[in-house]
Amino acid sequence: RRSGEINNLATVSSSLLPAFGTVIDDGYLQLKRFIIAPYDRRYRQIVIKNRWWQTFLVVLVIYSAWASPFELAFDHVATGSLMPVDLIVDSFFAIDIILTFFVAYLDKSTYLLVDDPKKIALRYATKLWFPMDVASTLPFQVIYRIFTGKLKRGSAFGFLNLLRLWRLRRVSKLFARLEKDTRFSYFGTRFIKLICVTLFIVHSVGCFQYWMAAHYHIKEKTWIGAELGNFEERSIWLGYTYSLYWTITTLTTVGYGDLHAVNTREKIFNIFFMLFNIGLTAYIIGNMTNLIVHSAYRTFVMRDAINQILRYASKNRLPESLKEQMMAHMQLKFKTLELQQDEVFGDLPKAIRSSIGQHLFQRTVEKAYLFKEISEDLIVQLIAEMKAEYFPPKVDIIIQNEIPTDFYIIVSGQVDLLIYKDGTEQFLSKLGPSEMAGEIGVLFNIPQPFTVRSKRLSQVIRISHQHFKQIVQPHVDDGRTIISNFTQYL
Amino acid sequence: RRSGEINNLATVSSSLLPAFGTVIDDGYLQLKRFIIAPYDRRYRQIVIKNRWWQTFLVVLVIYSAWASPFELAFDHVATGSLMPVDLIVDSFFAIDIILTFFVAYLDKSTYLLVDDPKKIALRYATKLWFPMDVASTLPFQVIYRIFTGKLKRGSAFGFLNLLRLWRLRRVSKLFARLEKDTRFSYFGTRFIKLICVTLFIVHSVGCFQYWMAAHYHIKEKTWIGAELGNFEERSIWLGYTYSLYWTITTLTTVGYGDLHAVNTREKIFNIFFMLFNIGLTAYIIGNMTNLIVHSAYRTFVMRDAINQILRYASKNRLPESLKEQMMAHMQLKFKTLELQQDEVFGDLPKAIRSSIGQHLFQRTVEKAYLFKEISEDLIVQLIAEMKAEYFPPKVDIIIQNEIPTDFYIIVSGQVDLLIYKDGTEQFLSKLGPSEMAGEIGVLFNIPQPFTVRSKRLSQVIRISHQHFKQIVQPHVDDGRTIISNFTQYL
Amino acid sequence: RRSGEINNLATVSSSLLPAFGTVIDDGYLQLKRFIIAPYDRRYRQIVIKNRWWQTFLVVLVIYSAWASPFELAFDHVATGSLMPVDLIVDSFFAIDIILTFFVAYLDKSTYLLVDDPKKIALRYATKLWFPMDVASTLPFQVIYRIFTGKLKRGSAFGFLNLLRLWRLRRVSKLFARLEKDTRFSYFGTRFIKLICVTLFIVHSVGCFQYWMAAHYHIKEKTWIGAELGNFEERSIWLGYTYSLYWTITTLTTVGYGDLHAVNTREKIFNIFFMLFNIGLTAYIIGNMTNLIVHSAYRTFVMRDAINQILRYASKNRLPESLKEQMMAHMQLKFKTLELQQDEVFGDLPKAIRSSIGQHLFQRTVEKAYLFKEISEDLIVQLIAEMKAEYFPPKVDIIIQNEIPTDFYIIVSGQVDLLIYKDGTEQFLSKLGPSEMAGEIGVLFNIPQPFTVRSKRLSQVIRISHQHFKQIVQPHVDDGRTIISNFTQYL
Amino acid sequence: RRSGEINNLATVSSSLLPAFGTVIDDGYLQLKRFIIAPYDRRYRQIVIKNRWWQTFLVVLVIYSAWASPFELAFDHVATGSLMPVDLIVDSFFAIDIILTFFVAYLDKSTYLLVDDPKKIALRYATKLWFPMDVASTLPFQVIYRIFTGKLKRGSAFGFLNLLRLWRLRRVSKLFARLEKDTRFSYFGTRFIKLICVTLFIVHSVGCFQYWMAAHYHIKEKTWIGAELGNFEERSIWLGYTYSLYWTITTLTTVGYGDLHAVNTREKIFNIFFMLFNIGLTAYIIGNMTNLIVHSAYRTFVMRDAINQILRYASKNRLPESLKEQMMAHMQLKFKTLELQQDEVFGDLPKAIRSSIGQHLFQRTVEKAYLFKEISEDLIVQLIAEMKAEYFPPKVDIIIQNEIPTDFYIIVSGQVDLLIYKDGTEQFLSKLGPSEMAGEIGVLFNIPQPFTVRSKRLSQVIRISHQHFKQIVQPHVDDGRTIISNFTQYL
Repeated sequence: RRSGEINNLATVSSSLLPAFGTVIDDGYLQLKRFIIAPYDRRYRQIVIKNRWWQTFLVVLVIYSAWASPFELAFDHVATGSLMPVDLIVDSFFAIDIILTFFVAYLDKSTYLLVDDPKKIALRYATKLWFPMDVASTLPFQVIYRIFTGKLKRGSAFGFLNLLRLWRLRRVSKLFARLEKDTRFSYFGTRFIKLICVTLFIVHSVGCFQYWMAAHYHIKEKTWIGAELGNFEERSIWLGYTYSLYWTITTLTTVGYGDLHAVNTREKIFNIFFMLFNIGLTAYIIGNMTNLIVHSAYRTFVMRDAINQILRYASKNRLPESLKEQMMAHMQLKFKTLELQQDEVFGDLPKAIRSSIGQHLFQRTVEKAYLFKEISEDLIVQLIAEMKAEYFPPKVDIIIQNEIPTDFYIIVSGQVDLLIYKDGTEQFLSKLGPSEMAGEIGVLFNIPQPFTVRSKRLSQVIRISHQHFKQIVQPHVDDGRTIISNFTQYL
Repeated sequence: RRSGEINNLATVSSSLLPAFGTVIDDGYLQLKRFIIAPYDRRYRQIVIKNRWWQTFLVVLVIYSAWASPFELAFDHVATGSLMPVDLIVDSFFAIDIILTFFVAYLDKSTYLLVDDPKKIALRYATKLWFPMDVASTLPFQVIYRIFTGKLKRGSAFGFLNLLRLWRLRRVSKLFARLEKDTRFSYFGTRFIKLICVTLFIVHSVGCFQYWMAAHYHIKEKTWIGAELGNFEERSIWLGYTYSLYWTITTLTTVGYGDLHAVNTREKIFNIFFMLFNIGLTAYIIGNMTNLIVHSAYRTFVMRDAINQILRYASKNRLPESLKEQMMAHMQLKFKTLELQQDEVFGDLPKAIRSSIGQHLFQRTVEKAYLFKEISEDLIVQLIAEMKAEYFPPKVDIIIQNEIPTDFYIIVSGQVDLLIYKDGTEQFLSKLGPSEMAGEIGVLFNIPQPFTVRSKRLSQVIRISHQHFKQIVQPHVDDGRTIISNFTQYL
Repeated sequence: RRSGEINNLATVSSSLLPAFGTVIDDGYLQLKRFIIAPYDRRYRQIVIKNRWWQTFLVVLVIYSAWASPFELAFDHVATGSLMPVDLIVDSFFAIDIILTFFVAYLDKSTYLLVDDPKKIALRYATKLWFPMDVASTLPFQVIYRIFTGKLKRGSAFGFLNLLRLWRLRRVSKLFARLEKDTRFSYFGTRFIKLICVTLFIVHSVGCFQYWMAAHYHIKEKTWIGAELGNFEERSIWLGYTYSLYWTITTLTTVGYGDLHAVNTREKIFNIFFMLFNIGLTAYIIGNMTNLIVHSAYRTFVMRDAINQILRYASKNRLPESLKEQMMAHMQLKFKTLELQQDEVFGDLPKAIRSSIGQHLFQRTVEKAYLFKEISEDLIVQLIAEMKAEYFPPKVDIIIQNEIPTDFYIIVSGQVDLLIYKDGTEQFLSKLGPSEMAGEIGVLFNIPQPFTVRSKRLSQVIRISHQHFKQIVQPHVDDGRTIISNFTQYL
Repeated sequence: RRSGEINNLATVSSSLLPAFGTVIDDGYLQLKRFIIAPYDRRYRQIVIKNRWWQTFLVVLVIYSAWASPFELAFDHVATGSLMPVDLIVDSFFAIDIILTFFVAYLDKSTYLLVDDPKKIALRYATKLWFPMDVASTLPFQVIYRIFTGKLKRGSAFGFLNLLRLWRLRRVSKLFARLEKDTRFSYFGTRFIKLICVTLFIVHSVGCFQYWMAAHYHIKEKTWIGAELGNFEERSIWLGYTYSLYWTITTLTTVGYGDLHAVNTREKIFNIFFMLFNIGLTAYIIGNMTNLIVHSAYRTFVMRDAINQILRYASKNRLPESLKEQMMAHMQLKFKTLELQQDEVFGDLPKAIRSSIGQHLFQRTVEKAYLFKEISEDLIVQLIAEMKAEYFPPKVDIIIQNEIPTDFYIIVSGQVDLLIYKDGTEQFLSKLGPSEMAGEIGVLFNIPQPFTVRSKRLSQVIRISHQHFKQIVQPHVDDGRTIISNFTQYL
């Protein structure tokens, strides 16, 4: 069966990311009819619709997360104004349950996409998910009313409604996905998650505390009744404000004491809530610390490097000019950090590195006088060993008399050729883009005859003597072309 | 003496872990009769029984940790309903004291298992452990009653009972062991430990505060009496709830103020308790931060690597296809992190590395046409230098004209041979499992004649040109076989 | 146009730092008349004036940050004693708005300094900045009075005054800049920033709470009115103190309860304030942890290294003298950390490394007998491969019979030549600055004939055998000179 | 002058450490008479006395830190029972001031020990230290009494007494020193420091709050007077307890509210105290986190390494035996971490490494049959390249047919020689201490003829083929001896 092909590829496209979408060849996407692939590039529109649908459901989940505890606390709202909203929301989730029977899934053991409707149904129906999904969707109060004809308010329905909180796992999945998605800031995602968790806890606990007070036999001996007589006859808004206020006062450990647990039942609930708060606070602080430590890392590295250079220079009493060169170099390094090959290239396979090299250097190398009219092969091989480098202005790239270990092609900027004669530096000429520096020393293996100093910020390509020799040696013809290029240039 | 053999080996099997059990040869396990080795594979059943026994004791310790402070606070319980339970628990610990005389121990200086009963007894009896174990097991109240015939309630017995908290060191040992055991999540272990410590502190302090109030001369001038008249005549349950409630209110720094220290004695105790809480809070937050920082580490590394590639690609305006190759590679890298040889192999000795290589690669290598009918020796040597690599789909493995540094055997997946001619890429053939790529360039030391590109996720074995030459050179016969294999293949 | 020259260079001098100022050549600074370069070395005085001006404005911003919320809370102050001060401050910011039209800016996409007045004006006027700057500068109350002739106190003006807080972005920019400036301690900058943020929040929230109380219809049912009757008729000072006191009591989660939210409006505000406090506290703790972790890093590294040596020495029972040598070396290493070449040199280009080497070693090398009268070229090349090292007293630098891998020139301090003969160590001679050790072994490639031991703290230059051979070989003449120098020395 | 000699050496012995004491040669210690060197080995007794003296003073400082704020709060104590104690303590510090004139100091710029009494006096007298030391020692109250003849209690004297807190810098110096001293646990030092700081702050603030209350004009409108009428006539003990209790209630942010700031003056003081507490809490938590993160580091590294191996083994379905070898090896690695050469050797100079090698390996190497009767030189050179390794039981050290890269000398433990013939492993012989394995392959450069497997935990010395060849080649005679040793052995 051909669909096995794409299924196998699905190994790769599982949890992480978009770029892998490219693997799917054109001929392979033939899932059974009506079955939707969870990650599908061909039917891109379906995927996008699916994403909008999921996002829409998350919005409904947020409503449910707010409404369920609220309806527990203020039960006449549940049978009143919020009831039609609840019914509409529930019906959307009912639709989603039905849709789930038509979405292919990825088998974790074989890494194959399963599109057999029976298997999909079997998997969904036999897991805990299905009954929980159904239970969290049924409008128990309405059903009771239909069967008995009576409208009954009661905590039983309130607690049954809490089953809708099962839908929260969608939000938790969403956050897990966002945290791995580099398009969203990790800091932001994490921060919003922490705020959501805190708000949900405050709201739920607040509503539960109100429910406890409302169902205690002596209203005056409750946390709210002691402060606010006849609290049940006041507005919902007032009760809700008091609930949130007290919950947050406890959560943040402010604990003014104007409201406090009065009867034993409340005291016990508060004991567990306060214990839980220790954990929550530690979790929030831990996350914050983690984010701050990570975000400050770069700054510390930069500051340490610069401090080290300053201390080294001052202890060794290096001349000011040398110190400035060192600083200029280090600062340039940190500003062009994202252009540094080494960090990025470390783990890439050779072929990709070669391709990048070709894309970046080929035009410049072909324009260099030394490599005119030499074979394509040789250029490809040379490029694979080239490295890009940046020099800040007024920094020595080559100094006279040093051993020729590298030579350079200037990509942009400008450098000066200088010669040190009779105790003074004399200016010889300046070199611009596509011109070469240090090639004389390398070709004849003699100490570099000139000092080369950057005149402004220059980007150069560096080729090491050793690699150059090694690569050119087997190509006798090209070697001759290079020598003749060089003599012509002179 | 032969038992010296296993003793010496015990050097290794000390604190860490199960795998080392395998070292013990069959003939060696001859400890003296009735003496039980602490880590013993032969008498596996005894060990398992011992483990069950220890686990059972930990459960009893938890009871003791709860009961001791509780009986101090509510002393009529200690002589009432809890007394028989205490006696039973104590008797189990008495049994354990006796058993300890029959468990061999590991001498820390010589690393030998000591199974001489006299030495075991001497060591146990002369250390602090033995008297403490005995003191924490004696039922002082019962003894007093037997001797005097009177049932006396009193704080003296309550404080003597606190000696049983000595048993807690078993729990602390258990946690120290669990933290090093990789079968249990570090996060979970640490988390449960923190909760246990917090609960124990809350319970103990709560009971002690109640004891203080119950023994203060003016009941109305105590933290509980000021709120709850005649608190001693109310139910134990109410008193216990108040105690825990106030303790936690203080511990979490909520401090409502409905209950607060009234007399000087309570104030002083609270001063020390609050000071201690600073430390406890800092300890909990510190641990949480540590766990979060560690668990987020991987995510940060992945996100940073991907961000770096994205930035590098966009700054250098790399073509989209190249960027996708880079991303695909990086993502594959993080998904197959546990399959990467380098990280695991770093510290292993050569012989183990060879064995792993043989187990993983031998079958594939023997099937490769180039290595048919060559000697076992050579294959072993070649395998020692091979490396496994994964390529995501559509990534170049070899590009035409590059210097032949490696060649590849395909393990799974599929790659295409392509040739770039007259400005267009032409498809030559495709290669599947056990076929080779890049061997032509390596054998004749010429630039690679083809581009090799993965068609889907492919697992390949890489052998470097250099190692191949070095290993094959001394084997003249095998060298010829390889060449003839190659010519046959063509 | 020549001014393009400096503009291009401005690429470098953007955000980081002073050292880059040196790049600007003398001929290039020709911005249009009246236009001020933001970073300008030539017109240094203007830059300095600009800096003073900016600093002066930051001081005014601090006043505004204090005054705006204060005038909201105590509105008769706004029309009273503070009004003239406000007008003066506003006028300074009005001047700054005008000046902004004359400061060149750096185009982010082209990295060019734009000095065209039209472009500057266009950019400033079309961004959000300009209307916000103007709105935050207009003295609305005075304008209203001029137009209507009436002096009206009112919260509307108070809220309009809060627009002046827009000026705070100057302070935030200042801190962002200071954090990257190595001349200021990161710890200090961060610490002051945290204090400023906290103080500003306390002040603003305090003033807002007072405003809420002052504008509530029943004065007795406000947080302050419940405690302090007729609070509006008391002194401003008393009200301000109460406001700050309550705010901080809440912020720090102390929450005594003597003051607490009374009406619903206050409760709701407090809910948000307390939620915000969780974040603020976590942020402060996270920053503190980050700073402490970073500052303790060095100490941990040192302690770990020393502990490792101590444990290694004691486990292997190394003789005391050897252990002391190891310790002495390790301690010296940590004391001279800033003198270690490796850490600093890692990223510097070769030419800078050579220059540093020349500056540090040239004089010493030229004085060494072996290198007398040899060519400048050779010395430059040798120096590029030299390394500085420090030896604590009584440590072996070379031991007899070892393979000659390096030889040394003593820079300062003193070393002893020892020979081990007939089982005892015999003292041969001592070497001081500019003398050489180990050169005999290297020149003739024989095992070192002497042990060389430092007599006191010595600084030496090390040259490796391999580099020495490699460099000297091509210089036949100099090679002869070296040999003749050596024979003469003997 | 000869004393310049030791002075110069003092460069090294400055702040860190004992081991450097050894540098001081016998002839050099001639400081001027009566002048005491701060770090002095010769006059060890004086140093020890000096250390006892310093420790004794620290104890007195602790008393002063307690007494100064206490006497401010309860001023009749200052003129009563504590006065004689204060006078005695002050006199000891007066003695210390005089002694300071006789202690040589280390000039920071020249790193010379200065023993000239005039210079010592000048330096001490001209710095801030001297007047502060004197001011913190003068018993102002006594002086006043002597001059005026009246005993005057007053806050002025209380505040003057606070000058004695200047002595606290001794404690801060002590902690700075202890933190760098590896003999003390960093965790412990830091922990005690935090506790001391917290206690001192609590005590000082508590006393100051009492002083504020005692000096307020309406006693009933103070934090303590509102709760405890006539508080000044009650016992000092009660007042002190209330002060500490309230301070800690605020510091820990519990804030019951039973005691709280009443008048404006107290409110303002509390504002600053609470702000300060944010910083203190963050500092304590930050430190705790730092210590926990550092102490958990090792455990994380071990767990990660083991998890990686387990995952690698299970994903690649490695046979159980191989997995156990890997685990055994990894566990051994973590248990012998302090015996690993690499970590310790990294930074040590070659000569020290050689010495350690000689001390550890020489006896074993000389006993190995191959190296009998070869020259001392050669053995020294071989040892410099040897490495110690540990093998857990049943791990392959060499496997048959592998390329001979190393050979081994067994130090302790036992290994088996095995040969794989006709499909089964056959046992050949076993090797014990001082016997060699793998030398046949290395000497004749043929694939290893045998598998070598450890039978129990074995410690071996490894020499690489390459180093062996390189070192032995130039020693023709020794080479012959080795060959003849080998033939004899066969």
